[in-house]
Amino acid sequence: MNELDLMTKIVSLCKRRGFVFQSSEIYGGLKSAYDYGPLGVELKRNIAAAWWRSMVYERDDIVGIDASIVMHPKVWETSGHVSGFSDPLVDCLNCKERFRGDKAPQMAAGTEVVYIKGGKDKGEKIKGVVNSRGYVCPICGSSELSEERQFNGMFRTTLGPVDPLDEFFREIKGKDLSERDMRGIYENITKSSLVYLRPETAQAMFVQFLNVQQTTSMKVPFGIAQQGKSFRNEITVEHFIFRSCEFEQMEMEFFIEPGTQAEWLKYWTDNRMAWYAKYTNSPTNFRLRQHDRDELAHYSDDCFDVEYLYPWGWGELEGVASRTDYDLKKHAGATGVKLSYFDQNKADPETGKMGWRYVPYVIEPAAGLTRTFLALMLDAYTEEKGVDAEGKEKSRVFLKFHPSIAPIKAAILPLVKKDGQPEKANEIAKKLREAGLNVSYDEQQSIGKRYAKHDEVGTPFCITIDPDTMKDDTVTIRYRDTAEQRRMPIAEAIETVIQSSRHPL
Amino acid sequence: MNELDLMTKIVSLCKRRGFVFQSSEIYGGLKSAYDYGPLGVELKRNIAAAWWRSMVYERDDIVGIDASIVMHPKVWETSGHVSGFSDPLVDCLNCKERFRGDKAPQMAAGTEVVYIKGGKDKGEKIKGVVNSRGYVCPICGSSELSEERQFNGMFRTTLGPVDPLDEFFREIKGKDLSERDMRGIYENITKSSLVYLRPETAQAMFVQFLNVQQTTSMKVPFGIAQQGKSFRNEITVEHFIFRSCEFEQMEMEFFIEPGTQAEWLKYWTDNRMAWYAKYTNSPTNFRLRQHDRDELAHYSDDCFDVEYLYPWGWGELEGVASRTDYDLKKHAGATGVKLSYFDQNKADPETGKMGWRYVPYVIEPAAGLTRTFLALMLDAYTEEKGVDAEGKEKSRVFLKFHPSIAPIKAAILPLVKKDGQPEKANEIAKKLREAGLNVSYDEQQSIGKRYAKHDEVGTPFCITIDPDTMKDDTVTIRYRDTAEQRRMPIAEAIETVIQSSRHPL
Repeated sequence: MNELDLMTKIVSLCKRRGFVFQSSEIYGGLKSAYDYGPLGVELKRNIAAAWWRSMVYERDDIVGIDASIVMHPKVWETSGHVSGFSDPLVDCLNCKERFRGDKAPQMAAGTEVVYIKGGKDKGEKIKGVVNSRGYVCPICGSSELSEERQFNGMFRTTLGPVDPLDEFFREIKGKDLSERDMRGIYENITKSSLVYLRPETAQAMFVQFLNVQQTTSMKVPFGIAQQGKSFRNEITVEHFIFRSCEFEQMEMEFFIEPGTQAEWLKYWTDNRMAWYAKYTNSPTNFRLRQHDRDELAHYSDDCFDVEYLYPWGWGELEGVASRTDYDLKKHAGATGVKLSYFDQNKADPETGKMGWRYVPYVIEPAAGLTRTFLALMLDAYTEEKGVDAEGKEKSRVFLKFHPSIAPIKAAILPLVKKDGQPEKANEIAKKLREAGLNVSYDEQQSIGKRYAKHDEVGTPFCITIDPDTMKDDTVTIRYRDTAEQRRMPIAEAIETVIQSSRHPL
Repeated sequence: MNELDLMTKIVSLCKRRGFVFQSSEIYGGLKSAYDYGPLGVELKRNIAAAWWRSMVYERDDIVGIDASIVMHPKVWETSGHVSGFSDPLVDCLNCKERFRGDKAPQMAAGTEVVYIKGGKDKGEKIKGVVNSRGYVCPICGSSELSEERQFNGMFRTTLGPVDPLDEFFREIKGKDLSERDMRGIYENITKSSLVYLRPETAQAMFVQFLNVQQTTSMKVPFGIAQQGKSFRNEITVEHFIFRSCEFEQMEMEFFIEPGTQAEWLKYWTDNRMAWYAKYTNSPTNFRLRQHDRDELAHYSDDCFDVEYLYPWGWGELEGVASRTDYDLKKHAGATGVKLSYFDQNKADPETGKMGWRYVPYVIEPAAGLTRTFLALMLDAYTEEKGVDAEGKEKSRVFLKFHPSIAPIKAAILPLVKKDGQPEKANEIAKKLREAGLNVSYDEQQSIGKRYAKHDEVGTPFCITIDPDTMKDDTVTIRYRDTAEQRRMPIAEAIETVIQSSRHPL
């Protein structure tokens, strides 16, 4: 299958079967915002639950938190997001595209270029010369570019029952001010109400480090995990849900003794690769890539990306970073609160005396829930060539999800809508629901069409109720991955579904 | 117990034990924003899961969605939130308080009032006269008030790689404009990038009605459920997490045939009351209150609040509203998309012919997850008078959560840290974790202190490993609600915890 075709098929299936819709679609949609439909919300919840289970429930050394999306604005000053989280934006004066200067095609200053007026396919050719910044428009190749302007990727809003614009307008009225002066007055007026939507969930774990450590009496090494939405005003949104302005993260900060970061980084990259391996059909589509020295953030002493082989190539799924003690030290410095840990059983390396107070180092596995959703959709998509009853070529499409993350665990299908079959089917559905499983009772259309539909949404089992069921309490269970059918007692079919739906250990 | 004392105790326990922290506390906190700590996040997740289970998994006629927080801005114009979701704000010129005019103490125009300068306790007395708007400052009683200004409760931000202020400053530079003109220019410039943070989750279900109905082939009556964060720039934030600017909702829109709203409203108020009854110790602290005619929103033909008896009195926990076909009709009108349903088995009441196309009516049970969290914390808080070993009066504090929502399902406690007890305890913990339960292994402090700690966080069972366990594989299981202890085989203790932790049916 052509790799980019696969993406088209996934986007289409997501829409057609209710995994992902464009946000506000009937209003023409909102750029790069997506809604998860009836099946998508289940897949997403199941992936999130699997992560939470592996991070929090299956271990003794990690606890969760759920912090507010709007945090104190000084948090983002301290973390470097206010000053550092910005990109040089440039407008092309020829085709009007807005782009990032640092990502544009680089070209030596003084190079002569030719491009078409207005960025059209045909038309008047214009000659230009690359200026000292050394790049051209990535769309039309023009060298007619605006100045660079720093654009911060954080969403800004104001908190509290006051519209700061009222005061601003009052303040500048009748004054002949420069743009820079107006900006200064505006920033000053909004200072007390300006807040940001968090661009990552991670900072909350640093800011609440002490509260969590003290209320739980956790001992280093220990971790704090969080899942939730983050927001970035991305300049380029791309690849469906891969890069969008509103997205979900699953991040964990693991606090460790200084000097142990190499071993813990190894531990967490292994752990996370093993986690993905539990849910994938194609482990070779996941890889670890170590960051080059010059790629590392200034506070990081090592970092790996977990990458997935998307249809357009290898791309980031998760970063596992060794962040040193940078974050805790920065927040401690900004607030005067001692964000440190006292180990009474360890000798202080400097004094040699028992009892060591130190600022923990941090290993951070930071995964994208939205990206894992996309990766596991791509991973599950399977087309199988076959022939239909009349010998015609016909391919079977199914989503080969691990049953624990499949949106629907089983479809309960009466062969006909009478003879007590619907009642029997509902009894079976009820038992599975009481076990906490999401199952579907479905009596519409032919049995073949129902099988095909449930293949396409990744339901691992179809349980069919037929005339024999009414006599001997046996059903047919059909396995999604092989299309094989087996006859068994109802109780055994129910147990098969319940056992298969358990999360892999 | 004094009712307001209870609130103080809950807030203190929430902080001390890691249920709820103030957001960004080390930065001095952010007004009315809260972070859920290691225990709070579990309680909140468990309540959310219980709701989702009851709405989506246990039924055939409701599916879930998870829409983006940022929706197309026209959604909020159509829904009436842009024009209608605003309050008349007034500044007191004496004490500087900002308040809602419509909620201030009403007083006939012309009434003479006396208040103290600056709103202080003592000081110069000032005489004033109530103006034609007919109210005074709720804080200091002053009649010196600013004009009313409409303040919209929605958070505004801008989407896309552009700061509209740059363009705005360029546009108004050098022009001598009125405040009103500046506002007009600003609104015009931000028109294409302005977006809101959703003030409710509900509109997404209306906007995606057709996508959901068509991808699932659901037949009316059916429902769409959603959980998630919403944001309101509240003028008054109060009662801890009861009213805050960032909060979580659990809303479900149930689409029905016109004319059946009375019976479905009855069904859903009963259903929701029964749901709360499963998790409360004090059912009489929950009541239904029907809205008065003049209290109903203009589109609603009937509405009930589920109210809880908070320490400060009865307050809203959930609204169950009959919304008629208002929302679908409004969105259909604004977009030109036919948001209707065709029932081929029903005769059209107007023509008498088979096949009826209609716009479904809607019953909406809209619950606050944050408020349910608070109500169930209050509900669970129990103080029991007793005596300690030496006969001194000593009260036992415990949180009497239903085990299915308790943050920790069981504490596994080795009596001593040696003799193989920790290993045995970890074996038991591992088995419970494999069953998907959040349990705590805890070996610090005396066994009595560990019991007290787990009482206070609502852990239903403590399983203690002692020297006898090492001989005969029996343990002591201690019941939180009675403090009773029983000896039983390990397997039976494990089964007790697993069975008790199931969601009530």
